[in-house]
Amino acid sequence: MKFLCASKGGDIVLFGIPFDSTTCFRPGARFAPDGIRFFSENLEDYSPELDKSLEDLDFVDAGNVECGVTVEGMVESVTAFMKDVKYPVMLGGEHSVTYPVVKSLVERYGELCVVQFDAHADLRDEYLGTKFSHACVMRRILELGCKLIQVGIRSGTKEEFELMRSCERITYLKTPKELADVLINERLPVYFTVDIDFFDPAFAPGTGTPEVGGFSPLEFFEAIYKLPAVKFVGFDVVEVSPPYDPSGITQALAAKVVRELILKFWG
Amino acid sequence: MKFLCASKGGDIVLFGIPFDSTTCFRPGARFAPDGIRFFSENLEDYSPELDKSLEDLDFVDAGNVECGVTVEGMVESVTAFMKDVKYPVMLGGEHSVTYPVVKSLVERYGELCVVQFDAHADLRDEYLGTKFSHACVMRRILELGCKLIQVGIRSGTKEEFELMRSCERITYLKTPKELADVLINERLPVYFTVDIDFFDPAFAPGTGTPEVGGFSPLEFFEAIYKLPAVKFVGFDVVEVSPPYDPSGITQALAAKVVRELILKFWG
Amino acid sequence: MKFLCASKGGDIVLFGIPFDSTTCFRPGARFAPDGIRFFSENLEDYSPELDKSLEDLDFVDAGNVECGVTVEGMVESVTAFMKDVKYPVMLGGEHSVTYPVVKSLVERYGELCVVQFDAHADLRDEYLGTKFSHACVMRRILELGCKLIQVGIRSGTKEEFELMRSCERITYLKTPKELADVLINERLPVYFTVDIDFFDPAFAPGTGTPEVGGFSPLEFFEAIYKLPAVKFVGFDVVEVSPPYDPSGITQALAAKVVRELILKFWG
Amino acid sequence: MKFLCASKGGDIVLFGIPFDSTTCFRPGARFAPDGIRFFSENLEDYSPELDKSLEDLDFVDAGNVECGVTVEGMVESVTAFMKDVKYPVMLGGEHSVTYPVVKSLVERYGELCVVQFDAHADLRDEYLGTKFSHACVMRRILELGCKLIQVGIRSGTKEEFELMRSCERITYLKTPKELADVLINERLPVYFTVDIDFFDPAFAPGTGTPEVGGFSPLEFFEAIYKLPAVKFVGFDVVEVSPPYDPSGITQALAAKVVRELILKFWG
Amino acid sequence: MKFLCASKGGDIVLFGIPFDSTTCFRPGARFAPDGIRFFSENLEDYSPELDKSLEDLDFVDAGNVECGVTVEGMVESVTAFMKDVKYPVMLGGEHSVTYPVVKSLVERYGELCVVQFDAHADLRDEYLGTKFSHACVMRRILELGCKLIQVGIRSGTKEEFELMRSCERITYLKTPKELADVLINERLPVYFTVDIDFFDPAFAPGTGTPEVGGFSPLEFFEAIYKLPAVKFVGFDVVEVSPPYDPSGITQALAAKVVRELILKFWG
Amino acid sequence: MKFLCASKGGDIVLFGIPFDSTTCFRPGARFAPDGIRFFSENLEDYSPELDKSLEDLDFVDAGNVECGVTVEGMVESVTAFMKDVKYPVMLGGEHSVTYPVVKSLVERYGELCVVQFDAHADLRDEYLGTKFSHACVMRRILELGCKLIQVGIRSGTKEEFELMRSCERITYLKTPKELADVLINERLPVYFTVDIDFFDPAFAPGTGTPEVGGFSPLEFFEAIYKLPAVKFVGFDVVEVSPPYDPSGITQALAAKVVRELILKFWG
Repeated sequence: MKFLCASKGGDIVLFGIPFDSTTCFRPGARFAPDGIRFFSENLEDYSPELDKSLEDLDFVDAGNVECGVTVEGMVESVTAFMKDVKYPVMLGGEHSVTYPVVKSLVERYGELCVVQFDAHADLRDEYLGTKFSHACVMRRILELGCKLIQVGIRSGTKEEFELMRSCERITYLKTPKELADVLINERLPVYFTVDIDFFDPAFAPGTGTPEVGGFSPLEFFEAIYKLPAVKFVGFDVVEVSPPYDPSGITQALAAKVVRELILKFWG
Repeated sequence: MKFLCASKGGDIVLFGIPFDSTTCFRPGARFAPDGIRFFSENLEDYSPELDKSLEDLDFVDAGNVECGVTVEGMVESVTAFMKDVKYPVMLGGEHSVTYPVVKSLVERYGELCVVQFDAHADLRDEYLGTKFSHACVMRRILELGCKLIQVGIRSGTKEEFELMRSCERITYLKTPKELADVLINERLPVYFTVDIDFFDPAFAPGTGTPEVGGFSPLEFFEAIYKLPAVKFVGFDVVEVSPPYDPSGITQALAAKVVRELILKFWG
Repeated sequence: MKFLCASKGGDIVLFGIPFDSTTCFRPGARFAPDGIRFFSENLEDYSPELDKSLEDLDFVDAGNVECGVTVEGMVESVTAFMKDVKYPVMLGGEHSVTYPVVKSLVERYGELCVVQFDAHADLRDEYLGTKFSHACVMRRILELGCKLIQVGIRSGTKEEFELMRSCERITYLKTPKELADVLINERLPVYFTVDIDFFDPAFAPGTGTPEVGGFSPLEFFEAIYKLPAVKFVGFDVVEVSPPYDPSGITQALAAKVVRELILKFWG
Repeated sequence: MKFLCASKGGDIVLFGIPFDSTTCFRPGARFAPDGIRFFSENLEDYSPELDKSLEDLDFVDAGNVECGVTVEGMVESVTAFMKDVKYPVMLGGEHSVTYPVVKSLVERYGELCVVQFDAHADLRDEYLGTKFSHACVMRRILELGCKLIQVGIRSGTKEEFELMRSCERITYLKTPKELADVLINERLPVYFTVDIDFFDPAFAPGTGTPEVGGFSPLEFFEAIYKLPAVKFVGFDVVEVSPPYDPSGITQALAAKVVRELILKFWG
Repeated sequence: MKFLCASKGGDIVLFGIPFDSTTCFRPGARFAPDGIRFFSENLEDYSPELDKSLEDLDFVDAGNVECGVTVEGMVESVTAFMKDVKYPVMLGGEHSVTYPVVKSLVERYGELCVVQFDAHADLRDEYLGTKFSHACVMRRILELGCKLIQVGIRSGTKEEFELMRSCERITYLKTPKELADVLINERLPVYFTVDIDFFDPAFAPGTGTPEVGGFSPLEFFEAIYKLPAVKFVGFDVVEVSPPYDPSGITQALAAKVVRELILKFWG
Repeated sequence: MKFLCASKGGDIVLFGIPFDSTTCFRPGARFAPDGIRFFSENLEDYSPELDKSLEDLDFVDAGNVECGVTVEGMVESVTAFMKDVKYPVMLGGEHSVTYPVVKSLVERYGELCVVQFDAHADLRDEYLGTKFSHACVMRRILELGCKLIQVGIRSGTKEEFELMRSCERITYLKTPKELADVLINERLPVYFTVDIDFFDPAFAPGTGTPEVGGFSPLEFFEAIYKLPAVKFVGFDVVEVSPPYDPSGITQALAAKVVRELILKFWG
């Protein structure tokens, strides 16, 4: 599978947002879209677990959104770009890039169920002088009126954990295997945002803020394979940071997440 | 344990084949033999699990085969080299190097049972213009008349998976713990080929084409310790690629695979 | 959490010993104290598992001990430094740095129970011409009259394993989950020494001598959370070697071990 | 010389601005202040060429300015910080950080002569959606009413080169050895801004946008040693990016630039 | 300048040959075409020395030739590709890739003057079992009937240096500044092949076989700027190997060589 | 040229001392002997400048001295090893390893003229608690009664520079081209010690303590080629530190220094 080669056009549109300007600790997520594309060469089109192949699907790799270095400029560019996208498969960038994608979908569908696989709550109201920091992205998405299912969160401030417990629109799942039961009756359109640091740093070392004690890819994929049918309207994989992974196993993992999610829901 | 220091001569001959010229994605396996030797310094001779020590064995490290940069030249050089080797312990190199070793043993023993630990099927008929690509090596070995037990394969084309299911001479095992039952009545001489990408990339990041979702070293070693006695005639560890692992944990894993397999079957 | 920022003074004193001069294989542990501090920025003060925060504790980061390049000089400097430290939280350096810390505590308390999480026995009598090598440190600590609980040891010479089995003052535990039962009636002051290579190299690749087949951070933390109350007088994390981990996940792990042990026993 | 250790207080204040959020190509300059400090350990206090020593001077390392991730926040923080600084020795960060330092000095002295050692003109009016980009910093400084001497510029748009030739307040010098003649009658307070990419990438590989064909350190230092006495009010070294230089020779060069400029003008 | 963005179509065709299968020492040149493209983003369209801009030229980046892993397959693919190329601007790959490009031009023009900037003679008749090795490429090109001007060669066997001196069709120049005089009356079509190891390793560390004692970029560009008008029919830059240069200064140099040669001869 | 392959036995004995335990800043020189050997593969036997070849000489690569981790143990091991060596070609290790080699030669010849190419004076009396530090090695060698010619020193304490000027047995040369005149009447046996940081860090980035402003390899080799005949009894190349040079140009430089010095004086 090579994303750029597989392009035939179609409803499923893969694109990158090479943006990391609000990153507080270690920048580099801007290099993820091209880094993941490089490793997509290394992955077969065919999924033995799902017995389906990307060759039988029409999707297009539309390249990267030119998004500047300010968060306001990025939101504007992505919003404009999303006008022509039916089903987004977005490669970040830091987590702040999820906001304009979800916002566009909310404008289209009215309400959304967002499933967040992540180590960090990302529920701060403001961080380092901006409300659009990666550390605030889920708070902003809540404010859009979305339902939020948080899976695997293991780091946050005391205030964020209290919000998680008290907010009615947030469902907190300790492990991904609980997700099937929660989604079984979901009527809303569903969007997945996969922050790569959901996985244990051993499996995804290439990320800005690794958080010890996460999940293995096998735990994730086994949970995904068992999910019920939902109205799946898009997903993203964010916070991959190639400069911190000379082996490339993080990028390879991101590419496989992309293939398996596409084939599971749209294959 | 330092391979080059431990040499006393004997039937068990460790040697390297620093060849990676058919590698399609990321070369570097040519540096594996010396990279693994470096990490063998770092490993005790004594295995607590097996309560045996390499000090009590006579094996020789015969260095690397000079093998040029064409696959035909490599096959010729290795075939010549194998004439004087009783029990090969071969360090690749990319997977194509397994072919001349197995071919030499087939000429000696008539028929062989080859156990392949691998993420990729390697059953293509041709790849990138050559029939001797690493991606074709098991197809070539099948054609030598070998019996093939494939363990842990999780990537391949649809055609390769269909061949796996339909070919009588291939046994497919999803996990290594099933191997003990399969080998219990094996009468043929047995050869192991361990492609390091059998292991999950978290445990073996230093390889050209990491494939997410593999096994841990503990799963492998526990399965090995439980194997029945067989007529063990050699093994190899291939596709270690030191340039992609600055920590060296892949090379350390390969060195331990070497020690434990030697002590398990010949100790 | 940023160690250097969190300083308020108090009984709990974090400090580094940037020493690795007896390292036989790959030096670099001297860079660990500052490397772990850098990643401590990346970690929240709040532990969701323990529902406690470092903000509510008074501890000080006293910086690094200037310790020269000879083992004799290092022991002398650390011994002098320890005079003003009540509860040490020490960041190595190679494992030899544990000796002067434990020696100071033995002089203070009379007898100590030392719990060693490690891949290697470190029970040699002499190594490479010195009795104070990292490979001899537990032998020296035994000679101070300490009780020794060794957890997870999976590498050593035959002689070291025989000593482990025969010595009455040594308790050998194969896994950390056995520790709770062993500590339940411990009356002695307890000190933990965590050699980062206790963890599997996948989770802690940044170490001089990685030993395949270790534990995951989750196994460690789950065991820690279940420990009974003891008279906890200090701990160290040693053998982190940042040059071998460009992703920094080893340093991030070390920082989390520090936070969780402080909050578990003193929070 | 270790900057943090050399601190005694005084008029000469070294500080870092770890900011790189407008970087368009490769971020990492945020890590420069601490990276240069690390290499300052490696440098003697004594300059044989100048026969002077930092030991005889009182300067203070005031640490890093906390500056957030937006350019507006950075300008505000640095402006506040500068209130208490007499002679700034500033370590960037990307080149945009020079603006608030020079602005503070202009407010103090009325007019300034700024000498820019750089490969790039940095005279754009706007770049990637912001007027405060590193690529616009000298344009903004011109607008403050400063006189500008540009040394070694070898990259820019056609428009920037035309501005250089046409603007009366800009003096363009092809090589640093021409600087002595130009400064001989300078009555204004003088500030130096040294973008590390002024040097050829061979000597300073650790920078975001290396530009082939620059100067050697010897050419720079020989020119500096010959400069006449001026009213020297501060300087900065910017655009060092440690992630791109594993050898550290760029950081070592920056530390030596700091020592020699301090001793030349204030020693 | 971004090669892939600058594409408008036209006679000048930039393309890559990601081939390095005959590399004897350290592979990696296959990653050069994309690595140089990445750094081309970082370079202005405008050359101040030549006062010309790429914006005023029509050239196309045609991407990479798919060339397999055997030298025979590569020669065949490149020969086919060259059919539609008027003026090639080729990015290697190892030096063997120059052969099919020159061969195509010889077939078109009858005879060619090839100017080789290189550290190594590359005049061996055979190497490691193949006549098409990078180490034999200039011998093969001589056999095509080309005139050969070798600039800066400083490494070879005694036999190669004897051939250089005795062969009438070879002109050996110790430094690039001698080239202007030699080309002044050249009537043949001229092709440049720039092996990046012509430059001193300080300026071009990212190459498989660095040879100490080469030229600086300034020496090269000054020589180029002074060349007389010739019938310039194409050029290549080969042997850049990004894995050995984490700073990217080698790729940046290659991109600048491309820009300056295009603007000098076709601007 | 591959050192280990070129071995035929003889008076010229190449060997490594993989020792760096007194290194204060960044260890790694212990990996130099094998690192330089690796790059020696990459170097022709034939020197075009000298028109001589290593093939016509009998020298032996005797491997590395096992030297432990204490400076006392290292001195003892090297002294014993030197008993059987006529003309040493020693690869360090940090600079402290020069002491036992010179001491052995002094015992053999009575008095010696030592030519030190270096950035640092290395004339301290004691450093970090030991008199045998790399920073003291030339002071110790002076005490052996040697004559000392220091070439290119550009870093030291004020006290060291005063000793250089006042000590009669020290000759200080600012550049290597002055050496020919100084050696013209030298009657004593001559030993060269080449600290790789003599070269500018651009040409030799792989060293523990890079010092900006050094010499190029061409300046060094041109000076060497012009030297008069002397009684040359051995030389060393020290302080190469491969971990800090992923490109390997430092190791390639060291290998070329070895070849040219052997061929110049013994060829």
